[in-house]
Amino acid sequence: MKIAVAGASGYAGGELLRLLLAHPEIQIGALTAASSAGTPLVQHQPHLAPLADRVLLETTPETLAGHDVVFLALPHGHSGALAAQLGPDVLVVDLGADHRLSDAADWQRWYGGDHAGQWPYGLPELSGARERLVGTKRIAVPGCFPTGGSIALAPALAAGLVEPEVNVVAVTGTSGAGKSLKPNLLGSEVMGSATAYGVGGAHRHTPEFAQNLSAVSGERVKVSFTPVLAPMPRGILTTASAALKTDLDADGAREVYEKAYATEPFVQLLPPGRWPSSASVVGSNNVQLQVTVDADTRRLIVVAAIDNLTKGTAGGAVQSMNIALGLPETTGLPTVGVAP
Amino acid sequence: MKIAVAGASGYAGGELLRLLLAHPEIQIGALTAASSAGTPLVQHQPHLAPLADRVLLETTPETLAGHDVVFLALPHGHSGALAAQLGPDVLVVDLGADHRLSDAADWQRWYGGDHAGQWPYGLPELSGARERLVGTKRIAVPGCFPTGGSIALAPALAAGLVEPEVNVVAVTGTSGAGKSLKPNLLGSEVMGSATAYGVGGAHRHTPEFAQNLSAVSGERVKVSFTPVLAPMPRGILTTASAALKTDLDADGAREVYEKAYATEPFVQLLPPGRWPSSASVVGSNNVQLQVTVDADTRRLIVVAAIDNLTKGTAGGAVQSMNIALGLPETTGLPTVGVAP
Amino acid sequence: MKIAVAGASGYAGGELLRLLLAHPEIQIGALTAASSAGTPLVQHQPHLAPLADRVLLETTPETLAGHDVVFLALPHGHSGALAAQLGPDVLVVDLGADHRLSDAADWQRWYGGDHAGQWPYGLPELSGARERLVGTKRIAVPGCFPTGGSIALAPALAAGLVEPEVNVVAVTGTSGAGKSLKPNLLGSEVMGSATAYGVGGAHRHTPEFAQNLSAVSGERVKVSFTPVLAPMPRGILTTASAALKTDLDADGAREVYEKAYATEPFVQLLPPGRWPSSASVVGSNNVQLQVTVDADTRRLIVVAAIDNLTKGTAGGAVQSMNIALGLPETTGLPTVGVAP
Amino acid sequence: MKIAVAGASGYAGGELLRLLLAHPEIQIGALTAASSAGTPLVQHQPHLAPLADRVLLETTPETLAGHDVVFLALPHGHSGALAAQLGPDVLVVDLGADHRLSDAADWQRWYGGDHAGQWPYGLPELSGARERLVGTKRIAVPGCFPTGGSIALAPALAAGLVEPEVNVVAVTGTSGAGKSLKPNLLGSEVMGSATAYGVGGAHRHTPEFAQNLSAVSGERVKVSFTPVLAPMPRGILTTASAALKTDLDADGAREVYEKAYATEPFVQLLPPGRWPSSASVVGSNNVQLQVTVDADTRRLIVVAAIDNLTKGTAGGAVQSMNIALGLPETTGLPTVGVAP
Repeated sequence: MKIAVAGASGYAGGELLRLLLAHPEIQIGALTAASSAGTPLVQHQPHLAPLADRVLLETTPETLAGHDVVFLALPHGHSGALAAQLGPDVLVVDLGADHRLSDAADWQRWYGGDHAGQWPYGLPELSGARERLVGTKRIAVPGCFPTGGSIALAPALAAGLVEPEVNVVAVTGTSGAGKSLKPNLLGSEVMGSATAYGVGGAHRHTPEFAQNLSAVSGERVKVSFTPVLAPMPRGILTTASAALKTDLDADGAREVYEKAYATEPFVQLLPPGRWPSSASVVGSNNVQLQVTVDADTRRLIVVAAIDNLTKGTAGGAVQSMNIALGLPETTGLPTVGVAP
Repeated sequence: MKIAVAGASGYAGGELLRLLLAHPEIQIGALTAASSAGTPLVQHQPHLAPLADRVLLETTPETLAGHDVVFLALPHGHSGALAAQLGPDVLVVDLGADHRLSDAADWQRWYGGDHAGQWPYGLPELSGARERLVGTKRIAVPGCFPTGGSIALAPALAAGLVEPEVNVVAVTGTSGAGKSLKPNLLGSEVMGSATAYGVGGAHRHTPEFAQNLSAVSGERVKVSFTPVLAPMPRGILTTASAALKTDLDADGAREVYEKAYATEPFVQLLPPGRWPSSASVVGSNNVQLQVTVDADTRRLIVVAAIDNLTKGTAGGAVQSMNIALGLPETTGLPTVGVAP
Repeated sequence: MKIAVAGASGYAGGELLRLLLAHPEIQIGALTAASSAGTPLVQHQPHLAPLADRVLLETTPETLAGHDVVFLALPHGHSGALAAQLGPDVLVVDLGADHRLSDAADWQRWYGGDHAGQWPYGLPELSGARERLVGTKRIAVPGCFPTGGSIALAPALAAGLVEPEVNVVAVTGTSGAGKSLKPNLLGSEVMGSATAYGVGGAHRHTPEFAQNLSAVSGERVKVSFTPVLAPMPRGILTTASAALKTDLDADGAREVYEKAYATEPFVQLLPPGRWPSSASVVGSNNVQLQVTVDADTRRLIVVAAIDNLTKGTAGGAVQSMNIALGLPETTGLPTVGVAP
Repeated sequence: MKIAVAGASGYAGGELLRLLLAHPEIQIGALTAASSAGTPLVQHQPHLAPLADRVLLETTPETLAGHDVVFLALPHGHSGALAAQLGPDVLVVDLGADHRLSDAADWQRWYGGDHAGQWPYGLPELSGARERLVGTKRIAVPGCFPTGGSIALAPALAAGLVEPEVNVVAVTGTSGAGKSLKPNLLGSEVMGSATAYGVGGAHRHTPEFAQNLSAVSGERVKVSFTPVLAPMPRGILTTASAALKTDLDADGAREVYEKAYATEPFVQLLPPGRWPSSASVVGSNNVQLQVTVDADTRRLIVVAAIDNLTKGTAGGAVQSMNIALGLPETTGLPTVGVAP
């Protein structure tokens, strides 16, 4: 299988290439970029030593032609038109937001512009999603926050344990913001600092959360979501909670989660008493989870750790690609973190 | 005024001395420690250059005698007996937990052992607290998390804007855990990692939150509190939320907070659109706040930044000491952060 | 004394204001900027709470007029012309490079363009420098690397202990690079990474090192200088070495340094066996030093820690201003670090 | 091939397991520890998800028996006696210092106690070392600093370009210090701080440097070595220099290094103008190098980046094991870094 990556100079593109270099069924074809076209890849991705001789091409339908799989790691709004030009037989994996939302009004409100339509959603752990990925030629890779948060909350909502109103605070590393040259992303600013942003329902991942959780729950789920930027390059630690509808205790909650994820290759419910750390999943496609019940407030509390670039972006993309291509789902995907 | 610090080798003790060195009314007397007694202070606090010649004494009533003010920065359970031996005329400022809780059953459940009784609570921004500090000889300095969280939520509860059930996720720097030699506090472990701990109502600051907010609200407030350890030495960023009881919007919420903190010297409600960053208050006694309303979930969201060692511990202690001694409340306390 | 700061949106400007807010003889006047003129200061310096209401003016001779002291924190090449328009009676303190070098050829080689001429050099610890600052109306603030490195090596060269060829590797925090929006300064890039730059004599501070050390030594000193960017916002840790000319041992070297800095208010030779840490001087104007002899290679090794923004930039500027104005040299300058 | 790891609870042991889990010819047998025996591996290595069910055994000849390869990741002084009990047919790979030095007097001076004797040295890039590893049953894995520094300097010394006196300053992440519970290794202490240690020839890796470089050079090489601890979990950035004996320029130096490492699978001389960053090799077995000449001081400057835990410890161990076992040298070893 020959693949191309559009947007190979960014963090998502770099992570894709890191994973695909270790994928036994993949040959790496064209690597393209926008303003960085013509520059050597090593300038942008010095860690990808085996690709040190590559030069970035321009992102066009022509440079992307002739590949079995094309990954689009582009700013939102750019994927729809490009995908249309790649033909229906190419597997197009969109790491951007364009094809995640089903509701055109949601798209309009949160992103603006024309809605490109919805593609099969690349979160196989979500009920029904895996089946829709088999054989598909189009994949919408989830946002990094909805990946961690949906996996954290879906079992409880599916089992009817909690009220359809959830609270999510997710601490994220800085690579989630990409390589944008903004003052608040400078090292001097982020080191030593925690900052909330997109507060009050303003973050664009909010409707994606709601869409996923409502689908699982069967009723409309309201999501209060606050992301917090922390001084680490990678990782998301999600703290999610919801009011319990039953008299379930921590052990009961644990059983529900154990059952829900018993056969998932990348989801690990930690032993009782151990809480997830974002460092433990760095570089891996793992999701580490722990669940408990706050007896005083009668809330279910779930904490989940993912690597925003791996499971949250590029690893999730490769996992879904594997399913679409009929390969074993875990092919080429690390289940061991790089720690400390 | 001559002061002594018991527990001068730790982070709280070091921060106290940093502040007191700049305090115009204070002369620094005995500095004591437990297992570090006999060692030079410079070994533990190399940043306190003007005290480089000091040697740590043993923490005893004798070494602490003869001072106008004694600060106790000790593990919990050690302050009550020691304070009793210092005499009623000495101002004793307890940075530990021993005298924060009013309810003996809460003490038993969360800390264990005998309850030492409650002292005037050193959070002047809380309704009624400032008055109780005037002229007192005993001060219980609040926990770092309840400092940020109570300031974040008190105005909304006092004004009856929200339901008496709040959700607090607080991202903290590592110095909050002190200098305990635990594997999970090693630099190799904390850098690059976010970890939740004390989840599900297990953190000892939970009853202190509830006590403060219930007092303000007039009814029992339930608190779901999750702390997250982030890779930074200092700072707490608190994200607090609660369901609105009224049809208030963000501007209305803002007005309530503006009024509540109009005359507070250390609390800054940021201009609309700006969100607090923990780095902006490092080394200062400031609390930076922003407030909004999530229109979809109808929740009030408040974000607050403090330095856990300054306003959250030693700065709060000095502020309360100033009030107790009849000095201007801001004496010797920085209102400018050290950034970046 | 009324002061103005040109370049108040950057890190050097912010640090100047942090210090000057605590300076008892200073009133803060105009704050100016280039592209940020017209924006509120709080957008750039959210830690400067007492100046939250200020708006940045444009940097012009007019906005800077009417002040007793004008600080120029500008890109190099901009200070000469502006200073000329401020009049000879205003104390102009240039934090940029324009007036540091005596040799026009050096300026041409390292910076390019016309040489603006040399001003009294703001490193009072250097032999003769303090005297030249008294009453001056023009001050050239040293570069951050030459500040640490010159203080580290000057006593040995002045005493003729070492050969006139020195090796300096200095590990620096990221704020030394300012707020430039370059990809390699993004938090995602700098966290977890150490990188050398300006290697092989390419860094612009090299001739300033050589000028300082040659003046002290009386012969031309060759400097091999390599800066290394490390994941911390502030601080420089300098490791400097030179071949010994004598049979001096570590104790002998220590004596020379003790004598050299016995009366310097900001230089601390640490007790034997303790090595400087950049964290111990953060936010202070201190220089912490240790010295030893490598018996096998017969080299003198000196390690020095400074805060690049305080002693290395803004603190050094205020210290020199104090001397120029006839104030006590230490006025308004912290000698206590902010740690941890 | 069935392997055992003695010392599986530490950082070196964890990294070994991370690599060996991806090694196609390896089956992971006994995992042992000292004080942690009896505890679950997940408590110490939560990132090693596939080994989550393992429990640590006690480190004894019995638990280590029956394996083809035994890795010893133990404190120095413990490997000799244990290895003797494992039998001559087992491949023993010592990640500790015991068998690195040839000179018993050096061992006595730097480590103390009896010298255990020298084993074939696991740095295949060093002239002659690869040949001595073929078929061996005993491997001494190099220290992390000598790995980076020897690769940086060997070509220049072998080619007679430089004088036999070298200067090495190496900036290291904290995992090099292991999991020792020392106050100076706490996250609160290391974040935001650079500190030199083992200054003046006091670091135990100094004689290993000298041994390697002297062997390559054919004459006794003097090494001035200073390590600097920086706030990052992994990585070593080595800045090495030596006085040139010839009129070589940067291009000439580059040619020597290109030739020296043309066929080395893990050494990458970067394109001209690009300087190594420790982040670019994190998690990989790569060494990234750049070389230049300081024309003013006539010194050769070499900068090298390695991951201290991978190429500097566990990766180097696996690479040497591969050679000893007759496997392709690169088997199971990553050549792609995990960045950002």
